[in-house]
Amino acid sequence: MENFVFRNPTKIVFGKGQIAHLARELPADARILLTYGGGSIMANGVYAQTKAALGDRTVFELSGIEPNPRYETLMRGVALVKEHKLDYLLSVGGGSVLDGTKFIAAAVPFTEGDPWRILSENAEVKSALPIGAVLTLPATGSESNGAAVISRDDQKLAFINPLVYPVFSILDPETTFTLPPRQIANGVIDSFVHVMEQYMTYPAAAPLQDRFAESLLQTLIEIGPQLMAKPGDYDLHATFMWTATLALNGLIGAGVPQDWATHIIGHELTALHGTDHARTLAVVLPSLLDVQRVGKREKLLQWAERVWGVREGTPEERIDAAIARMRAFFESLGVPTRLSGHGIPDTVAAVVEQRLAARKVDAIGERGDITPAVVRRILAAAA
Amino acid sequence: MENFVFRNPTKIVFGKGQIAHLARELPADARILLTYGGGSIMANGVYAQTKAALGDRTVFELSGIEPNPRYETLMRGVALVKEHKLDYLLSVGGGSVLDGTKFIAAAVPFTEGDPWRILSENAEVKSALPIGAVLTLPATGSESNGAAVISRDDQKLAFINPLVYPVFSILDPETTFTLPPRQIANGVIDSFVHVMEQYMTYPAAAPLQDRFAESLLQTLIEIGPQLMAKPGDYDLHATFMWTATLALNGLIGAGVPQDWATHIIGHELTALHGTDHARTLAVVLPSLLDVQRVGKREKLLQWAERVWGVREGTPEERIDAAIARMRAFFESLGVPTRLSGHGIPDTVAAVVEQRLAARKVDAIGERGDITPAVVRRILAAAA
Repeated sequence: MENFVFRNPTKIVFGKGQIAHLARELPADARILLTYGGGSIMANGVYAQTKAALGDRTVFELSGIEPNPRYETLMRGVALVKEHKLDYLLSVGGGSVLDGTKFIAAAVPFTEGDPWRILSENAEVKSALPIGAVLTLPATGSESNGAAVISRDDQKLAFINPLVYPVFSILDPETTFTLPPRQIANGVIDSFVHVMEQYMTYPAAAPLQDRFAESLLQTLIEIGPQLMAKPGDYDLHATFMWTATLALNGLIGAGVPQDWATHIIGHELTALHGTDHARTLAVVLPSLLDVQRVGKREKLLQWAERVWGVREGTPEERIDAAIARMRAFFESLGVPTRLSGHGIPDTVAAVVEQRLAARKVDAIGERGDITPAVVRRILAAAA
Repeated sequence: MENFVFRNPTKIVFGKGQIAHLARELPADARILLTYGGGSIMANGVYAQTKAALGDRTVFELSGIEPNPRYETLMRGVALVKEHKLDYLLSVGGGSVLDGTKFIAAAVPFTEGDPWRILSENAEVKSALPIGAVLTLPATGSESNGAAVISRDDQKLAFINPLVYPVFSILDPETTFTLPPRQIANGVIDSFVHVMEQYMTYPAAAPLQDRFAESLLQTLIEIGPQLMAKPGDYDLHATFMWTATLALNGLIGAGVPQDWATHIIGHELTALHGTDHARTLAVVLPSLLDVQRVGKREKLLQWAERVWGVREGTPEERIDAAIARMRAFFESLGVPTRLSGHGIPDTVAAVVEQRLAARKVDAIGERGDITPAVVRRILAAAA
């Protein structure tokens, strides 16, 4: 096992009816910027519940945060905070709203030029405003981690900082009952791939982390089709919500190598073609596992047996069978696993190779062996 | 799934060589009470490593904290803190030292009479000194939770408070290389039973919590005999240490019913006969599962199949077989699973019944159906 530091200070307030207790988590004199996306929180009542729970606190609003939150939109939030001397950010929505809110939290006190430098140059974040969250879409894990992904022009970049962990996150599974099937499918796949990025590497003598990761994968495989078939089952939505949080709160990644190449490649597809984040992952991961099967061989065989129950055939056949089962799982959720299924031309392989080379991204994956040329092969194989 | 609140703020600093970085976690001007037990930290070098890492900070010491930490010993620590105006507690040792340190942390600022009232009357803890820990014995999970068990006269009682979570805990698996086999066996069993108390109840539509619990159990079953056979294997000790922490840090208990009757009964045996904590659990749990098999039936069958691979026979036979396999596992670690194996007379059953009745403990277990009379049956069956 590798040495690690693990600290996750976010308070999770989980269950039905918990939004009503929001006021307990906020200072009585908090001056709040309430951030959200489109109209879904109006339609499903979450906006009304939140406003009611906030009582007579001062609240300004930033609406319209995009599914891939954009720098320009978020800088409007920064301006609102400064203009009205707000001191607490409350994100109401999914991971994109929360990611955008994290950027605002870090950008407000940032004094060394354009806050975009936090992403483009990894500029140091020395302080951040406190963030609370009401989560309405299980997927990104942003409700209990210090990561955010922000877009500007045709760039989609990530930053990670312990200062932007939410102070608290309210997870009421009932807020997810009205999600459209596409969002549920995306959330299941996003969570699944988060686990894979922290699990599907080389063995690291960390059997507990392996079993926890396999537990998350097995649970997603079990509940994914049920969620699509009978939306509104409280226990299914609750398990989905908690699984998505634990998939990316630092727990299963502690003490083990991680990959994350699927995400880096997927972000390029979203930046270029606007494809939903999770859908890019569903395309990239099967192809990446196929191309990287030598370096990941031992773990692929363990995964084939423990997660997919594949025990027959040669090692290569078992790996093929497990990847095929994962493709079938994604497709059973209505998500194509080929570029063509999302209308992305196969010429994207060369474009992404050039973009990564231009950004000097030359050694991704847990072994640092996924060069831009290998990325091109992975995308070519995903056509 | 039940509603829950989960927050665990402890920073875990895990791995070889981490004690040397202790100073990073402490304020430069901290005035420290260093707490420890007997001489093991002198023999294995942990005391020297700790003192070296503390630099020139002011340090007073409380040594001699017992395996079941005693009120009188800890009150000497309270006096030292007050006399020398100390402001930070550093626990170096296992769970008993840490539990005792938590009591000191809560007792110092306690102003409403004898601090024993925190245990005997559940008196409110309104503040506590900060605690850091260097853990040397994986077992209790105390390094990442807010619980402590303290003894006075023939009473052994617990308190739980979020204010006594350690601020940080340093977990260096190398500090556990020199543990005697008895301590390793005790730690494996203690961790195993912590998981069981949070898992072996009635089904709560929480499949992820179930799988995480089963992952912890499977890992302990896998590594327990290996640890006994080849002490000093870094990865085995690391997995043991991290498994013991995650067995009782609040994670697997979030959103599910819990039992804890085995611990309550076991504490009585320790209070009366001085038996090692883990050894009392090894006696009580098999018998408790046998007696409570109706209320726990569904989960017992799931456990039999997933954890022990028992798939043959009638449901009753499968439950019997799984309990027998657990007994065999404990005994393979050198720990008897009958009262007689620990020199405890069978008359203890009636004594414990009377003691619990006198304390008005009349409804333990996840269904509140373990009365003192049922406790007597459980202990009688463990003779």
